[in-house]
Amino acid sequence: MAEGTSTRADRAAYYERIARKNLAPLWESLHNLVPRTPQPRCVPAMWRYNDVRADVMEAGSLITAEEAVRRVLILENPGLPGQASITQTLYAGLQLILPGEIAPSHRHTQSALRFIMEGKGAYTAVNGERTTMHPGDFIITPSWTYHDHGNLEASEGGEPVVWLDGLDIPLLRMLDAGFAENYPASTQPVTRPEGDSYARYGYNMAPVRYQPANGNSPIFNYPYERSREALDRLYRFGELDAWDGVKLRYINPATGGSPMPTMATFMQFLPAGFQGKTTRSTDSTVYSVVEGRGTARVGDQEFHFGPRDVFVAPSWQPVQLAAAEDAILFSFSDRPVQMALGLLREERLE
Amino acid sequence: MAEGTSTRADRAAYYERIARKNLAPLWESLHNLVPRTPQPRCVPAMWRYNDVRADVMEAGSLITAEEAVRRVLILENPGLPGQASITQTLYAGLQLILPGEIAPSHRHTQSALRFIMEGKGAYTAVNGERTTMHPGDFIITPSWTYHDHGNLEASEGGEPVVWLDGLDIPLLRMLDAGFAENYPASTQPVTRPEGDSYARYGYNMAPVRYQPANGNSPIFNYPYERSREALDRLYRFGELDAWDGVKLRYINPATGGSPMPTMATFMQFLPAGFQGKTTRSTDSTVYSVVEGRGTARVGDQEFHFGPRDVFVAPSWQPVQLAAAEDAILFSFSDRPVQMALGLLREERLE
Amino acid sequence: MAEGTSTRADRAAYYERIARKNLAPLWESLHNLVPRTPQPRCVPAMWRYNDVRADVMEAGSLITAEEAVRRVLILENPGLPGQASITQTLYAGLQLILPGEIAPSHRHTQSALRFIMEGKGAYTAVNGERTTMHPGDFIITPSWTYHDHGNLEASEGGEPVVWLDGLDIPLLRMLDAGFAENYPASTQPVTRPEGDSYARYGYNMAPVRYQPANGNSPIFNYPYERSREALDRLYRFGELDAWDGVKLRYINPATGGSPMPTMATFMQFLPAGFQGKTTRSTDSTVYSVVEGRGTARVGDQEFHFGPRDVFVAPSWQPVQLAAAEDAILFSFSDRPVQMALGLLREERLE
Amino acid sequence: MAEGTSTRADRAAYYERIARKNLAPLWESLHNLVPRTPQPRCVPAMWRYNDVRADVMEAGSLITAEEAVRRVLILENPGLPGQASITQTLYAGLQLILPGEIAPSHRHTQSALRFIMEGKGAYTAVNGERTTMHPGDFIITPSWTYHDHGNLEASEGGEPVVWLDGLDIPLLRMLDAGFAENYPASTQPVTRPEGDSYARYGYNMAPVRYQPANGNSPIFNYPYERSREALDRLYRFGELDAWDGVKLRYINPATGGSPMPTMATFMQFLPAGFQGKTTRSTDSTVYSVVEGRGTARVGDQEFHFGPRDVFVAPSWQPVQLAAAEDAILFSFSDRPVQMALGLLREERLE
Repeated sequence: MAEGTSTRADRAAYYERIARKNLAPLWESLHNLVPRTPQPRCVPAMWRYNDVRADVMEAGSLITAEEAVRRVLILENPGLPGQASITQTLYAGLQLILPGEIAPSHRHTQSALRFIMEGKGAYTAVNGERTTMHPGDFIITPSWTYHDHGNLEASEGGEPVVWLDGLDIPLLRMLDAGFAENYPASTQPVTRPEGDSYARYGYNMAPVRYQPANGNSPIFNYPYERSREALDRLYRFGELDAWDGVKLRYINPATGGSPMPTMATFMQFLPAGFQGKTTRSTDSTVYSVVEGRGTARVGDQEFHFGPRDVFVAPSWQPVQLAAAEDAILFSFSDRPVQMALGLLREERLE
Repeated sequence: MAEGTSTRADRAAYYERIARKNLAPLWESLHNLVPRTPQPRCVPAMWRYNDVRADVMEAGSLITAEEAVRRVLILENPGLPGQASITQTLYAGLQLILPGEIAPSHRHTQSALRFIMEGKGAYTAVNGERTTMHPGDFIITPSWTYHDHGNLEASEGGEPVVWLDGLDIPLLRMLDAGFAENYPASTQPVTRPEGDSYARYGYNMAPVRYQPANGNSPIFNYPYERSREALDRLYRFGELDAWDGVKLRYINPATGGSPMPTMATFMQFLPAGFQGKTTRSTDSTVYSVVEGRGTARVGDQEFHFGPRDVFVAPSWQPVQLAAAEDAILFSFSDRPVQMALGLLREERLE
Repeated sequence: MAEGTSTRADRAAYYERIARKNLAPLWESLHNLVPRTPQPRCVPAMWRYNDVRADVMEAGSLITAEEAVRRVLILENPGLPGQASITQTLYAGLQLILPGEIAPSHRHTQSALRFIMEGKGAYTAVNGERTTMHPGDFIITPSWTYHDHGNLEASEGGEPVVWLDGLDIPLLRMLDAGFAENYPASTQPVTRPEGDSYARYGYNMAPVRYQPANGNSPIFNYPYERSREALDRLYRFGELDAWDGVKLRYINPATGGSPMPTMATFMQFLPAGFQGKTTRSTDSTVYSVVEGRGTARVGDQEFHFGPRDVFVAPSWQPVQLAAAEDAILFSFSDRPVQMALGLLREERLE
Repeated sequence: MAEGTSTRADRAAYYERIARKNLAPLWESLHNLVPRTPQPRCVPAMWRYNDVRADVMEAGSLITAEEAVRRVLILENPGLPGQASITQTLYAGLQLILPGEIAPSHRHTQSALRFIMEGKGAYTAVNGERTTMHPGDFIITPSWTYHDHGNLEASEGGEPVVWLDGLDIPLLRMLDAGFAENYPASTQPVTRPEGDSYARYGYNMAPVRYQPANGNSPIFNYPYERSREALDRLYRFGELDAWDGVKLRYINPATGGSPMPTMATFMQFLPAGFQGKTTRSTDSTVYSVVEGRGTARVGDQEFHFGPRDVFVAPSWQPVQLAAAEDAILFSFSDRPVQMALGLLREERLE
């Protein structure tokens, strides 16, 4: 039967023939390639901390931090099987470090963030400075900076410490821009006292001749104590957005932008009883619950979340947040990439 | 047999168990996820125009421009089958428009460039202005701008016109940021005379109150006549880089950056006898030969190129160019994305 | 006698003749107009707080805040008499507000900073928010923002409060860009609780959708407590620059730049016994001593400074600082203007 | 008689006393220091070329270019006598170079522009490249670049050449940021062929690895032929602003900003019979007539202008332009300074 100027069989024969020359007809796939709205393969999903904590701890007996280099369980999006991706651009995992262990020093062009979930005694070292990791702290290890993690001996108070890793691994895989190398020793030398970066850059001041060399924040630990205080104060002042509750983004104080060029990070407070309106945006977002309980509707899913649960909202899926008790959510997404390229869209639905 | 603290079988059982919870062990894939150097799946490839021209023309009898919306043969990288990708982030195709045809008006968030290969009589319309397409012209249709293409009737001098399309389709697919819509009519109204944008922005001047609203160039046709003249003059002045010959990048005169935020474009002259040194970079590049003949070594491949041939150099693959006769190469890549994210690396080898 | 091609008399007659047409010979003044190095008319000078405090207080009995609008004694550079200038681009004055008084609300395109010297009970209101002024606090009232100052009644604990005002009045006079208007009431309405701006922008976080509209910091009070703590911590960490001691610049966290586009502000710590090396730069700087005693050599002058003294270092004059006891200096200059125009030069002499 | 809390005599005595301490009462001068609207001392003025040309030529017999270094008659604003200023921030002068002369090479931090008025044979050299000066060309010699001027011998076709110099001398005097030095020889070596910079940067392209090092345009001659063509085309396309006619600003193609950080430059076309509406802005502007005749109302002045006349419009003075015959006006102002500092205001009056 005729389709325009040719039969279906004509076309099939033609397609088969040109395929051998690495050619394909755009008109058969145009609507998929240039969709009306985003068609993410990434799906809404949640990992309950209670469901996975035992697996994380079991990994501690299965393999040493040194052998593993990084002892992490990847949170793999069910819509992206085998791709080590929680969204199409982002990777997330739960990392465990036991007392007395060291995760050896290396660097890579992938940017990484750490959001601390439980335990005490561990540190992350970046650029010659170690920072102690407390639950709720947000820590960055920017692209191509040597970093290692360690933990006190149990006798010194070290506990198993678990944190959420967020990296731009899938993004850099697509961009074919991944480089890595190991530091010649398991730990990098400590050349600066703990708190040095924060003292230089964390007080709305900076060294007099400092000029930023790249888009990475010179602060590398944003302590929970401070972030929590900002949210508390704003809530007391009456701030409450009908979609977001009280929501702040972490900034690179040297530029006002995101702490790293590829990932934005947020912390928000939802008071008990909050019933947020629906929003959607083109940046896929990973949420990590810090405190409290509530419900997140994401697309056609409903997640009842509690402390340390992780859930993900794909691009352009409607998201609606509600809190049964005062709740704090940390989140991260590829928003700065979308902004840099002029692609971010957001919608706040009534 | 023991591996560290557990047997291989222990681990396999564990991996199987956690997989059901959408968890995966990072340590089994760390080296793939965080490679020493880029490991592109995209491979070096070439499409000879003489090999594919007949197929392009045949498409003209197989389907109308109107039915196809865009009558394009996608150049699909052999390393990325079925993905409509010439590199991991970029799409390329050969588009044909016959005399008297119209490719109807639509817009999408994907950015597009056109590089004209043969024929005369066709135009592209963007933002209410039509520009006639001449071989060697470089034309942009920025993100979310309505655009349509048309051609004169054969009786008015219209010829079959073929151009190379370059789009960031795979990048936007990964970013889940694709939106599209059709214009209510097949062509948008013409509201400005041909040459208006160029007169406003193309003379190293700009309207007195103009401030750029986004990263897209206000010039939308960069005529070959001008680009060729710049290369000619520089060559006569003695410019000749041992790696690149005489190579210029197109700029957005409102910012100095690339004409669109996701794709850089270049034009270079290689004099007869030029034997370039080897270079490599993390932006994968699509080359389109404008004039002349020569040889491109890309990774372990060697391509003997002539006019209108298209070839592709994946990330971090060594590239070496030589010219048997005076040659002009147009090329495009995702360089501005890599620069915006602090990821671009280049190496010029001796 | 001949000078080149003409006599001195010829030239004088010619000069006189062309002067009537508003013409003048460049060659007679070229070396003054285009000097080898800066030739500031501004001179090094110091105002001892002990010498001027009584005059400031006397002003309180001479005129009311309301009549004066702003009850300020201008610190006028001896090299710039009658110009209300402490440097060629900057104005400085000591402002007094007594218990129960109000300095009425107005706005102007001149940017203003306040550095608090003594007393308690007073506030500054900007953008609907009042901030209590404590000694050592640095407060901004950006260009074209309504601002008023007030003080508690004596019965509520209000004391005479004195602060240093710094404005870009001479700069805007030269640029002919001064506009001003009064608010219809003596005080602007209070629409936001005290601390609101700081909670939003002061914690290395920002509201999620905030984009800076101009170059002014969204924080308007930088409390001394925080600035002092940053300096203390850095000094304890071993930071000590041979020229500057421990010196930080205040930043606009939305951009990383100076808090306002025309004035940079700094705070530095000089430990007891510090003998700084000599530095010079093209930004003329006004220093205000917060704590401690020491010596400043500026050009051919030597100033023995103590708490609340103000001194000024003109462009390109060598400056050398020494501390007899632990000292804190606040300072401000036109550095961001010089940087924006590509003019800043600095030299650190051995 | 009492004035508020004190008598006039009390105050006078107090003022006299504190003056000895370099203190002055703000309240006596507040309205002058912080005016309602700009109060420029610069006044509207015009220099008719026919009135001053003979004086310029006479300077050629009075002093050699070499002795003068720069043989220039300064256009001194009648409101700013003795200050070598045409506006409060800008300097303008008419420079003459005779056949066979050289104006020796030097550099200074002051930025300079040249707008060619008459004659042929002369060149300006910047950064090792000479450019021939044609009437209507706009040439820059950016801050701290060595530059010299020369002219052909009369036997080779050299004619007396006159151009308008525009510099930011008063601005840099206020900023105390002036440095200068002579080149060790009278001319700098020529290291690049004429047209090299334009070929690299003037075609909406740039060398592939070029990144701007500062705010200065890499193009240093903007030829009249091109600027005129852009205006002509736009006028033919129907462009005609009721205030400005057809007005373009010159851009630095590396940034989209002004060619130099301290001065904006414009060229506009007014068709015969054009009666512009009134506009005003805070940047004081110097106009140089290229072609045609017309009338400029500036404040309360009316100037009937013809070719090569120069007139000046102070800050915030109403400006209204009319053309008796097709007219082209070149102009320059301190607009980029005002924009960088957030101070520019404009008003288009009906």
